[in-house]
Amino acid sequence: MKKILNNPADYVDEMLEGMVAAHPEYYAQPVRRVVVRAAGARKGKVGIVSGGGSGHLPIFTGYVGKGLLDACAIGDVFASPSAEQMAEAIRLADGGAGVLRLYGNYGGDVMNFDMAGEMVEMENDIRTTTVLLADDVASAPAAEAQKRRGVAGMVFAYKIAGAHAETGADLDEVTRVGQKAADACRSIGMALTPCTIPQAGKPTFEIGEGEMEMGMGIHGEPGIWRAAIKPADEIADEMIDRLVADQPLGKGDRISILVNSLGATPAEELYILYRHARKRLDAMGVEIVMPLVGRFATSMEMTGATMTIIKLDGELEGLLKAPAECAFWKV
Amino acid sequence: MKKILNNPADYVDEMLEGMVAAHPEYYAQPVRRVVVRAAGARKGKVGIVSGGGSGHLPIFTGYVGKGLLDACAIGDVFASPSAEQMAEAIRLADGGAGVLRLYGNYGGDVMNFDMAGEMVEMENDIRTTTVLLADDVASAPAAEAQKRRGVAGMVFAYKIAGAHAETGADLDEVTRVGQKAADACRSIGMALTPCTIPQAGKPTFEIGEGEMEMGMGIHGEPGIWRAAIKPADEIADEMIDRLVADQPLGKGDRISILVNSLGATPAEELYILYRHARKRLDAMGVEIVMPLVGRFATSMEMTGATMTIIKLDGELEGLLKAPAECAFWKV
Repeated sequence: MKKILNNPADYVDEMLEGMVAAHPEYYAQPVRRVVVRAAGARKGKVGIVSGGGSGHLPIFTGYVGKGLLDACAIGDVFASPSAEQMAEAIRLADGGAGVLRLYGNYGGDVMNFDMAGEMVEMENDIRTTTVLLADDVASAPAAEAQKRRGVAGMVFAYKIAGAHAETGADLDEVTRVGQKAADACRSIGMALTPCTIPQAGKPTFEIGEGEMEMGMGIHGEPGIWRAAIKPADEIADEMIDRLVADQPLGKGDRISILVNSLGATPAEELYILYRHARKRLDAMGVEIVMPLVGRFATSMEMTGATMTIIKLDGELEGLLKAPAECAFWKV
Repeated sequence: MKKILNNPADYVDEMLEGMVAAHPEYYAQPVRRVVVRAAGARKGKVGIVSGGGSGHLPIFTGYVGKGLLDACAIGDVFASPSAEQMAEAIRLADGGAGVLRLYGNYGGDVMNFDMAGEMVEMENDIRTTTVLLADDVASAPAAEAQKRRGVAGMVFAYKIAGAHAETGADLDEVTRVGQKAADACRSIGMALTPCTIPQAGKPTFEIGEGEMEMGMGIHGEPGIWRAAIKPADEIADEMIDRLVADQPLGKGDRISILVNSLGATPAEELYILYRHARKRLDAMGVEIVMPLVGRFATSMEMTGATMTIIKLDGELEGLLKAPAECAFWKV
């Protein structure tokens, strides 16, 4: 295991301590493994919370900030936070106007966040709603879209719901817009090498030296096919084809696209992917708004990339472009 | 070679094409492998150019923007741009007030940039000056500091000289401040795994499964020692010790610190390193200003990290905090 760490059992807590220490203007950690905005909850504003396993920086943890999340509960690497941590995140995000739980469709997260919602409703009289991201088209067919996993599309949903909450919209409105953003996202990933969970000490999967896997999940969940590594343009073609097959796009449509590294894949390769994806979208007459290329949702040092398309209307586009600020992303 | 690319010979050009296409509000590429600000040179402002090999995003290429560089010449992966490309970068950066060449101390870059300076002086009557970054303390002893290589300290020098040029300072002033920033930087790196140059197709060096190398250069240049991987806190201790041995720090000193991934090392591990580095600096009574943690100067998918400290006075601190904006960094 080639990692820079101390005791693997301290990996998450030391990472969070370092992150909050490096960016005290953005983050505070009033309760273990719950990160909130340094300024705390704003009275009268709808709160937005997320949560999930560690090992995906900046996603979950890092997107707490103005125009984004109010609080986030952090689990062990690739493991759900507890219901109690999630309940704490909700309490800390509450400004008296209710709290949206906005997170990815994973069994443990759903179970714990549902319990957390019941806890805060009973104990603290906080009204909560839920929007689940289920954007990974490789994880289930369109007919069973509710079974799909949530991946990098979450970044768009955080951004859009966060911007709407910032305007003073009420809980039902923020929930409506968050759901609309979630419904407009489609993602697909591909991986070349695995990552290692510090406490396990061995790779999450094995793959041949010359092989890639299309459709693989961010925790190494099996994908659609595994075969010899294809050229970048063919990879981009297949990713675009699969995204467009699930959500048709045509002349005049406006979208944003996120070309995301799973961690080790360098920015250079992301731009090579973006180059071809853009040519394909240009050829369809699709207009790209505010493309994102970089590391937004990772699996530590996994090699690979994901591509997310969000189909925009005027409302989503306006909220996507609204100001937002955290240590990892400024709009 | 597990990379997402097409023909390795097209790696650099396709990467640049994708980068400029993704961020047209920041970048243009009017001449092959020369990236300039989208808005072009500002009349009357001192221009700042850099240049170097590809494979280090965002450094070189990405730091073109307001409050940063005006133009950058890009070579093949880990190879110097040609003197003609550098001369083009200088011409495109010239607003009539002269141009500072601000880059890292590598033989090929120095030879070509010196030639480029002579070319534009003769052909275009453009006055140029030079500031060389030589911040890597592992690359030569303090007594031969002029032999040291330039690494991530360049990010601080770009930022500070760029902010000064933006205020309307003249060429001698921008050069003085750029040199002062360069002189105040000390860096050290450590690596766990190599990267692969696309056209070579094999790793730049070999290293054992359980081994790390302290002091390794960003192109795999040999370091100070190679041994079993140490805990993160011990690695941070040694890096801080070596930086402080070269540039003493004490109570009341103000610094900035950059904890930088060489590419594959995830943000989580950088924060674990930062956590301990900060404790050490706190214990010395040193004040940290605007710490930077992330990927600023990489070697594609190399695993490892670098640490840079810049010792600040009021002038450097003010310029470091001044606004700047490119696709990879907003201050």
